[in-house]
Amino acid sequence: MPYNSIICRYNEIATKGNNRSMFENALIRNMKRMTKERVSGLNFVKTRGRIFIHKNEFADFSEEEEAYLKERLQDCFGLDSFSFCIEGERTLEAVLDHIRNTVKPLFEQYINLGRPVKFRTRARRSDKSFPLRSKEIEIEVATMIEEMYGENKVQVDLMNPDISIGVEIREKNSTIFLETVKARGGLPVGSNSPLLGMLSGGIDSPVACTMAMKRGCRMDFLTFHSYPYTPLESVQKVWRIAKIINRFQPHGVLYACNLSEVQKLIRDNCDPKFRTVLYRRMMMRIASKLCKKCHLYGIVTGEAIGQVASQTVVNMSVIDRAVPDLIVRPLCGMDKLETIARAEDIGTFPISIEPMADSCTVFAPPSPVIHAKLHFIEFEESKIPNMEEAVQKAFDEIKLVTDDGLTDIPSHETDD
Amino acid sequence: MPYNSIICRYNEIATKGNNRSMFENALIRNMKRMTKERVSGLNFVKTRGRIFIHKNEFADFSEEEEAYLKERLQDCFGLDSFSFCIEGERTLEAVLDHIRNTVKPLFEQYINLGRPVKFRTRARRSDKSFPLRSKEIEIEVATMIEEMYGENKVQVDLMNPDISIGVEIREKNSTIFLETVKARGGLPVGSNSPLLGMLSGGIDSPVACTMAMKRGCRMDFLTFHSYPYTPLESVQKVWRIAKIINRFQPHGVLYACNLSEVQKLIRDNCDPKFRTVLYRRMMMRIASKLCKKCHLYGIVTGEAIGQVASQTVVNMSVIDRAVPDLIVRPLCGMDKLETIARAEDIGTFPISIEPMADSCTVFAPPSPVIHAKLHFIEFEESKIPNMEEAVQKAFDEIKLVTDDGLTDIPSHETDD
Repeated sequence: MPYNSIICRYNEIATKGNNRSMFENALIRNMKRMTKERVSGLNFVKTRGRIFIHKNEFADFSEEEEAYLKERLQDCFGLDSFSFCIEGERTLEAVLDHIRNTVKPLFEQYINLGRPVKFRTRARRSDKSFPLRSKEIEIEVATMIEEMYGENKVQVDLMNPDISIGVEIREKNSTIFLETVKARGGLPVGSNSPLLGMLSGGIDSPVACTMAMKRGCRMDFLTFHSYPYTPLESVQKVWRIAKIINRFQPHGVLYACNLSEVQKLIRDNCDPKFRTVLYRRMMMRIASKLCKKCHLYGIVTGEAIGQVASQTVVNMSVIDRAVPDLIVRPLCGMDKLETIARAEDIGTFPISIEPMADSCTVFAPPSPVIHAKLHFIEFEESKIPNMEEAVQKAFDEIKLVTDDGLTDIPSHETDD
Repeated sequence: MPYNSIICRYNEIATKGNNRSMFENALIRNMKRMTKERVSGLNFVKTRGRIFIHKNEFADFSEEEEAYLKERLQDCFGLDSFSFCIEGERTLEAVLDHIRNTVKPLFEQYINLGRPVKFRTRARRSDKSFPLRSKEIEIEVATMIEEMYGENKVQVDLMNPDISIGVEIREKNSTIFLETVKARGGLPVGSNSPLLGMLSGGIDSPVACTMAMKRGCRMDFLTFHSYPYTPLESVQKVWRIAKIINRFQPHGVLYACNLSEVQKLIRDNCDPKFRTVLYRRMMMRIASKLCKKCHLYGIVTGEAIGQVASQTVVNMSVIDRAVPDLIVRPLCGMDKLETIARAEDIGTFPISIEPMADSCTVFAPPSPVIHAKLHFIEFEESKIPNMEEAVQKAFDEIKLVTDDGLTDIPSHETDD
């Protein structure tokens, strides 16, 4: 259909006071960035709690453009919903004209089903100087539709319409639309400080990272492997997951750290039952160093209270104490089923369930400790010779993950 | 209807390995505790991924008991769903007999609507030595129903039945049920370590606390007021909220701390724009002391990234640094609308939106800092004379909230 504009709606941003325009600008910046690859030269117009997008001189969107923009805008956090629409003159005649031309194929499609088509009109007049009130506009539209098709073919149904016609009258023009596409809500990526996501090949961490992005945080990612005890393919699996969730944000890089030497030290020096907690503390220390180097403001993990033995309150508390950084755990209060539903929604679930060796389970003990006391853990760590050096070495050897494998980190990646 | 048993189903507990019986026992303990007030002497039987509840000698539940138990079990975290059922002999005749007697009022109710009643049977044979297979049991039941009412009055509909008849054949007996009540899922309260919930009169913190309980953590609560700058009624409002969410757990107590003297010190000595973050750090210090005194293993807050100015990543990080404790933020990755939906679901929303002065907004500056740097905050705190003493005094004067007001903390409350 010949749409020349997109009406974009947001929700939580509308509740912002002083710094609302900061959020709006971040949203527009993201919408531009996420669509420019295939549709350039778009105009973004802020107006009273809405953002409108149109091409130069209100040229119509092609079908390909419409499909592409629909897909991209759905993934733009901060947007609550949007509709492709026709922006036209601010007169009743223009509104009725545009509706007449636009609704035809839709109505005919339903009429061909051989039963009365149920429809409604929802009018909204943000410019109160327009001569007709919302209710009156709705009646005008309904009357026109009934005249077009005959009263036995169409009927107004406010509750369960087949077709819903939206009309908005604004200061300078009118807008009509037929479909509202639900987006994901949240806040625009970049409206809060960037974070480092601990990303594994599992179900949880991609969901946790996506939730942090949805609250406005751009993310880079860190994954751990234990080559040669785990295959390097495990890193590529994580990279495939990172690419899926990168569609929500400007390119986030994936760093890969080989933990095997540190794990060997733990295996050789510490009580086996503490291994999992000790691994996690080492991971946190390396993540903390990376945050400092790359100007990231906290660490996101996929931990949920009570999900596995290492994720008890006491163990989490001991893991927290390894670093001074903020640790963000968006899933801490969620059930596994909720997390799985979210993983399916963002599209990472099918990859996450592919079988793959996990760094956390290397040398894993049969009975890990469930409530690790801090002083025991600190005692175990004190038995590791040159622990600091081993952690530093693992950190120094962190690689960047690309489609072609692991590469050294270019200096500019960390110098911003 | 004359039910003599309840079949209880769980989900996440079923995925537990070694310590599954710990979770099952916690669930049974909670179910007992949550129902004993009005139905005593219940028997709880663990069996292959199910828990059955019945009265002595399988006496029928009265209608009042059924209504009461239904209400209570729905709020028992760890349960996924349950059904009132008839437990009987492990023979096809007994199953058919019980169904015949039980379904009558239900079928008649639908038949009176004057259209064919759609029904289905779902049979499950966990004891494979039973002579009929599940499919065969389903056919026997359908045949009987059709004979009872005539084929023009009833029809099998697997997808959209009006009535769904459940049959389970187990080792020692058979079970039939007509309705499955959805419960809340999660893990049984008490299966993880207890936490301290920072509870305010707002929408978010009761939701956050409930989510932590749902992951197995029993909670006590701490609220702050600023009497005489805020009215003491604000504490009673929080108590009403605490009582609502206490239905999910054994009685959690609510502690109330007067922060006004500490706030005055901050007002008189520090840069106004840092007040909110400084208040939050003081609250954390007091909460940390209470955790230590009452053997609680972490602090739950209702913070969500980006929701308000004090909840930026940087501010949260600075607030975290005030104490060594684990800070659990179940809402950190959630949108306000999700939180509101959860508040409505648990029933705290109507109270939370009642207007009431809030301790956090006492002396609140017009433009709070959005990204507080730690060294600035530490410098501001260094300007407060006797800060430690003021915090200790506020902590020492913490009261217990009851229906009658604030009382001193009885010594046994904190000596366990």
